[in-house]
Amino acid sequence: MAKVKPSIPKGTRDFGPIELKKRSYILNTIETVFKKYGFMPIETPSIENLSTLEGKYGDEGDKLLFRILNSGDAFKEIRERNSDEKISNFKFQNSDISEKGLRYDLTVPFARYVVQHQNEIVFPFRRYQMQPVWRADRPQKNRYREFWQCDADVIGSNSLLNELDLILLYDEAFRKLQISKYELRINNRKILQGIAEIIKGKEFLNSISIAIDKLDKIGEDEVKKELIENKFTENECTNLFKIFKLNGTNSEKLLSLKNILSQSTEGLKGIEELEFVINSLKHSSTQSPNLKIDLSLARGLGYYTGCIFEVTAGEGTIKSSIGGGGRYDNLTGIFGLENISGVGISFGLDRIYDVMDELKLFPENLKANNTKLIFCYFDEASQNYCLQAINKVRNGGIASEIYPDIVKKISKQLDYANKLEIQFAAIAGENEMKEGKFMFKDLFAGTQELLSIENIIEKLK
Amino acid sequence: MAKVKPSIPKGTRDFGPIELKKRSYILNTIETVFKKYGFMPIETPSIENLSTLEGKYGDEGDKLLFRILNSGDAFKEIRERNSDEKISNFKFQNSDISEKGLRYDLTVPFARYVVQHQNEIVFPFRRYQMQPVWRADRPQKNRYREFWQCDADVIGSNSLLNELDLILLYDEAFRKLQISKYELRINNRKILQGIAEIIKGKEFLNSISIAIDKLDKIGEDEVKKELIENKFTENECTNLFKIFKLNGTNSEKLLSLKNILSQSTEGLKGIEELEFVINSLKHSSTQSPNLKIDLSLARGLGYYTGCIFEVTAGEGTIKSSIGGGGRYDNLTGIFGLENISGVGISFGLDRIYDVMDELKLFPENLKANNTKLIFCYFDEASQNYCLQAINKVRNGGIASEIYPDIVKKISKQLDYANKLEIQFAAIAGENEMKEGKFMFKDLFAGTQELLSIENIIEKLK
Repeated sequence: MAKVKPSIPKGTRDFGPIELKKRSYILNTIETVFKKYGFMPIETPSIENLSTLEGKYGDEGDKLLFRILNSGDAFKEIRERNSDEKISNFKFQNSDISEKGLRYDLTVPFARYVVQHQNEIVFPFRRYQMQPVWRADRPQKNRYREFWQCDADVIGSNSLLNELDLILLYDEAFRKLQISKYELRINNRKILQGIAEIIKGKEFLNSISIAIDKLDKIGEDEVKKELIENKFTENECTNLFKIFKLNGTNSEKLLSLKNILSQSTEGLKGIEELEFVINSLKHSSTQSPNLKIDLSLARGLGYYTGCIFEVTAGEGTIKSSIGGGGRYDNLTGIFGLENISGVGISFGLDRIYDVMDELKLFPENLKANNTKLIFCYFDEASQNYCLQAINKVRNGGIASEIYPDIVKKISKQLDYANKLEIQFAAIAGENEMKEGKFMFKDLFAGTQELLSIENIIEKLK
Repeated sequence: MAKVKPSIPKGTRDFGPIELKKRSYILNTIETVFKKYGFMPIETPSIENLSTLEGKYGDEGDKLLFRILNSGDAFKEIRERNSDEKISNFKFQNSDISEKGLRYDLTVPFARYVVQHQNEIVFPFRRYQMQPVWRADRPQKNRYREFWQCDADVIGSNSLLNELDLILLYDEAFRKLQISKYELRINNRKILQGIAEIIKGKEFLNSISIAIDKLDKIGEDEVKKELIENKFTENECTNLFKIFKLNGTNSEKLLSLKNILSQSTEGLKGIEELEFVINSLKHSSTQSPNLKIDLSLARGLGYYTGCIFEVTAGEGTIKSSIGGGGRYDNLTGIFGLENISGVGISFGLDRIYDVMDELKLFPENLKANNTKLIFCYFDEASQNYCLQAINKVRNGGIASEIYPDIVKKISKQLDYANKLEIQFAAIAGENEMKEGKFMFKDLFAGTQELLSIENIIEKLK
């Protein structure tokens, strides 16, 4: 076996013990809230058929799918089908040799799951799912090729109470994580539809959505340029930006919008939906979620049809979203089950981690190591003496380990304990064995006393 | 978007809520034991460079790797390098268009991790890792293409105390899972080496290992045939099988073996190692692990050098292994870090699940749904009344949901609750609102009473 300098693919990461403790802390916090809100877990395979994935995330998404080479002689068919052609002339397709791809998000596999298991599911179905996804994106700061999403969706119910519930869930989870300045922006695709109608025509919803989605990144001038390339007039652009820049509280914005969109049935429907959500919040919550109507919020994914959400941290240097979601009226339709409306939100574990790390929001008591007590000794006899004792300690439910190698110097063993921040050590030498006890050390406090193993267990419990 | 009949790749599975609860139960049980024994978590990427994976699992393993197509125009290089050749003449290599693959096990990525992070690690390093792996194996009963391994390894210590600790860990975990009839078979590669020396010659270790690994599957006659094809004589085969079929207790087997291998230093070293482990167990454990020396245990993977383990359920129809492991003296060597010995064990989540499902070993109280209380109502007014209350219930830490749609028939809402096995319902109608209370139903017991929300919270806490 040739020697290789070890490395991992760009955009992927190893996680050491302390990083994993922090990641688990986030996952557990979110999962606890998911459960408290009545959501049930599912998991889907990492590998999906490309027929399930392709065409669901737009052209850009198709490019970013990780494709898996067919097993065996992947090229057999190519060779046979095109035997006389020169290689230079033949345009190979990835699909010629690949039928499967890695999960790109959790929503499309969920829709596939719902259709495939429709007879086992009790609707409305409240499901959560916490799994990695993969995108062959250009890696950069806070953007990875393997990252985790934590999704909660309610499918099989049109009720806006679900939007409300998900907003409350977002609020509780982010507060629990101490990201209490989070900003939850909300908009509605029907309002965007209405705006398109009023400004230029229904069919321009997409070009407007794509353009304003970039407002934050490229600024008003560039967005305007793009719109004009898409046949918008100077005047239409001015009117559009006037709407996106509407000022005031949520209620004031909705009021202005009602006038602007008074001729659009669809637009008024969108306003009504936002109104319901915002009014219902008053009934249900003692403290208001940090909810803000943002008319320039569009969300790239084509399947959204109603309310849409996006969350940012609200402080620190990371401005990109740490969560998002929305209502989709017919996502399961592509898989053959029509008219099942759903709404969902997603937490981005990795960005949330980066935010919490920067803002120092992790609890201070997270430790890489779980061991409470380490056994140290000098020779074979004291090793056997420790072996008897560790069994009792572990039976008492106390996390414990025994230093594995006989090293005469006890300081080397304690050095190991100190580096791993293990607080307690039980040391056995000739004297301790004679007394039937251990030298019990608190390595943090620097104290020690001679104790029986039973007393040590009692102290640590 | 074209309609596609939803399906998932063969060998992969969806997991619904109750299956996931059971899987979590196993994972949590194993993880609790890992922590109790002082192991620390790491995770490695699902995607590794093929240079890390290839050549580590034998030719068979290389064939079973899932390879990921390079992003962008994967064929560019092929077209350019071979422009004039005919497709039919050109032998494409998977490596021409693929540089990355999916994780095949947790041990090789762990070795890669140790070398890459050697300066951050405190040795001896006790790590655990619980993640999925992927193999393009032929799917069959109890064999999947995506499955989970749960590994614990100690690296950076030669001490046999680690073997002992891992045996105790296996014992505790399988007993906690109620797989109390598990069989842990143990052997030592050095003994196999000694047997090869005595019977025919050192260099025949591999052909002996490969052949006897199949003893269970194909039987003695077929193994003999294979050995004879590999230049073994009839007589050598007879001697070999005599050893593999040694009878008696562990101590008796070791005694016989000492005579047989008395001329092999390596063989005697292996016997000594097993003796140490078996004798130390007497010091450390109140109950004996179900440990049995099996001289025909070989384990396919080439990197093992000392003790090797394999676990089977010991009852039921599933005979294939649910765990395994062993000592490897220089696995990190391939990545440039020499002379670091390690030993590890693995739990196969999916097989353990299949065993527990067959033997009905899961706790009976595992439920798909977490919701304790569901709110039901008749109209918008009572919906708002419920919204105020659910907030209080959730603040009290009680998992709760509100039926999302206004359906006049309360029976439809209760039907949903019954299907999900939700035990308690709080119903709000005109009368309840007038009294400032809820009709509190125990759907399991079939009882009900009129209670304030505070009383309900108290009851459910």
